Amino acid sequence: MTTSTGPTYTAARYLGEHRFDVAEVERRAPGPGEVEVAPAYTGICGTDLHIAAGHMDARVTTPAVIGHETAGRVSAVGEGVTGWSVGDAVTVVPLRPDGTCSACRAGHGHVCEHLDFIGIDSPGALAQRWTVPADTLIALPEGVDLRTAALLEPTAVAVHDVRRSRLAAGECAVVVGGGPVGILIALVAAQAGADVLLVELDAARRALAEELGLATVDPREVDVAEVARARSGGSGAHVAFEVSGAQGGLDTAVSVLGVRGRLCQVGIHAQPRTIDLHRFFWRELELLGARLYQRDDFSRAVQLVASGEVPAERLISSVVPLERVGEAFEALAGGGAVKVLVACQPADRGERA
Amino acid sequence: MTTSTGPTYTAARYLGEHRFDVAEVERRAPGPGEVEVAPAYTGICGTDLHIAAGHMDARVTTPAVIGHETAGRVSAVGEGVTGWSVGDAVTVVPLRPDGTCSACRAGHGHVCEHLDFIGIDSPGALAQRWTVPADTLIALPEGVDLRTAALLEPTAVAVHDVRRSRLAAGECAVVVGGGPVGILIALVAAQAGADVLLVELDAARRALAEELGLATVDPREVDVAEVARARSGGSGAHVAFEVSGAQGGLDTAVSVLGVRGRLCQVGIHAQPRTIDLHRFFWRELELLGARLYQRDDFSRAVQLVASGEVPAERLISSVVPLERVGEAFEALAGGGAVKVLVACQPADRGERA
Repeated sequence: MTTSTGPTYTAARYLGEHRFDVAEVERRAPGPGEVEVAPAYTGICGTDLHIAAGHMDARVTTPAVIGHETAGRVSAVGEGVTGWSVGDAVTVVPLRPDGTCSACRAGHGHVCEHLDFIGIDSPGALAQRWTVPADTLIALPEGVDLRTAALLEPTAVAVHDVRRSRLAAGECAVVVGGGPVGILIALVAAQAGADVLLVELDAARRALAEELGLATVDPREVDVAEVARARSGGSGAHVAFEVSGAQGGLDTAVSVLGVRGRLCQVGIHAQPRTIDLHRFFWRELELLGARLYQRDDFSRAVQLVASGEVPAERLISSVVPLERVGEAFEALAGGGAVKVLVACQPADRGERA
Repeated sequence: MTTSTGPTYTAARYLGEHRFDVAEVERRAPGPGEVEVAPAYTGICGTDLHIAAGHMDARVTTPAVIGHETAGRVSAVGEGVTGWSVGDAVTVVPLRPDGTCSACRAGHGHVCEHLDFIGIDSPGALAQRWTVPADTLIALPEGVDLRTAALLEPTAVAVHDVRRSRLAAGECAVVVGGGPVGILIALVAAQAGADVLLVELDAARRALAEELGLATVDPREVDVAEVARARSGGSGAHVAFEVSGAQGGLDTAVSVLGVRGRLCQVGIHAQPRTIDLHRFFWRELELLGARLYQRDDFSRAVQLVASGEVPAERLISSVVPLERVGEAFEALAGGGAVKVLVACQPADRGERA
């Protein structure tokens, strides 16, 4: 026999075109500078849905353990790692920049030219164990629910986007698209003191946002630019966040902005889009591409969620066990669900840090 | 007889679709807060060409005295105006914002929602006399050639664009489009300490730019993105200026930018354009609409031109007398010419301030 007899753990694996299995995979003990985490809950992200749909097969090597929105506990510590102990409650900044490219040298490692996005380009967190570089860990404050903490990654996205937009207290912000990231942007923007309007087609998502205290509109029912003008004392919105990824959403985001307005582009537009550049010229608008997050954004997200200022847990539609990971993807693909978590450990059912 | 017997002056008037006449028009003495200027030289701008081609007939009331790039001398001072005397050499910031709209209240009067652009929306400087609000005047330092000073307005555009791009010394800038504004942007950017590459299709314009010490490329001959990468040590350009107004120019400007690069949009794109927003997302690029100038930009332009740091006079292709204004438009419409000035006073042939 040449098969390994080492320890194994359970992992969900993407096999190609909507197919997943749940298998026992061999444990890779953390090497020098690494830490092994036992994910408690891992959220399913829009990118994971794209992977599941086969859109990213050129980038993902199957069978692939994916997943990058996680909270859990340290389960083993590699050689030379200090500051972390087994049992510590953590979340993970799932980015491994090369540290040498011009983006990294300029301090923008999150947009590294050769970024290893852990959970896409290397194994992820839809598993009972996840070995990552120690410097990707962020400690969770005491008392944070690990389910809630699984939403820190999309909250860090929202913090990054709001920071990138330079949104200031008292300004008017329009968020176009009310999925998890759109709602989190709206919550972070509101917490920053902005007047926020969320534009979303889906009634259930609008209802959830309204429950969270956000003003919402259906763009088929009202002229969003008029609403923004009225809310901003006539100037038009100071900031728009394009989170829909759709041409119509982009058009709406451009239309709401007043003079010198900033359009923060969050949604992924795989195709070229048409855009009214004359309006950018005439009103001196700005378009600001925004991707992922920097470590500071993640730390700020921990503060906002731990303090309850951003009630991220309200976005959780359901929690499914790792063995039934396919149901998580089905729930999201079917619409209606906002954020679905996968419980990666049989024991974790509502644990606190 | 009911016709006026008051003083008159000579003015060129746009009559519609490429037609101009030169007529004696009645003098309007400067009212309270106004100053009358005797334009020495008035430059023809791209916008003037659009007016002459009939593209702006909805905005311009014919017969129309147009022109807004001027340098001249104060010829009369209205009631209550202090600080200006007959004979003072001046240029004019040809903007009259309403002072009350949200853009004005936010300090952005140059993009006022009801901007009166003097020379388009109200009478301009292709005439022997031009009455303007006193607060539009800027004094010229001693010794500035009034022909050169007629280029202060497009130089102020260039200063504004470079300022808006946040271009810093040592950065790599690509200017797409080598007309007068593109060359002036390149000169201002170079003076600011940037490494500058000018992209231009026309060989004569490239030759002029090279004479002025600028590096140029023909985008049909080289891969501009590769050249920008090589010039920037592999990072890609920090700033691109889109001055061509063409889809191809826009594509080039997007293609040259490195991570967090800024695209300053100067050219007028009357039609919607397609744009690779995925690249804006992936590299966290910025698009910055830039229009006209603020008074500070004009003051800085005066410094740069008066000191010789920006040799604006080198852009002057020819000077034609007011009586032959049609020739100025023909020279520009025919291509080859860069900047054509109209000499508005019979006596002014190279006067210095």
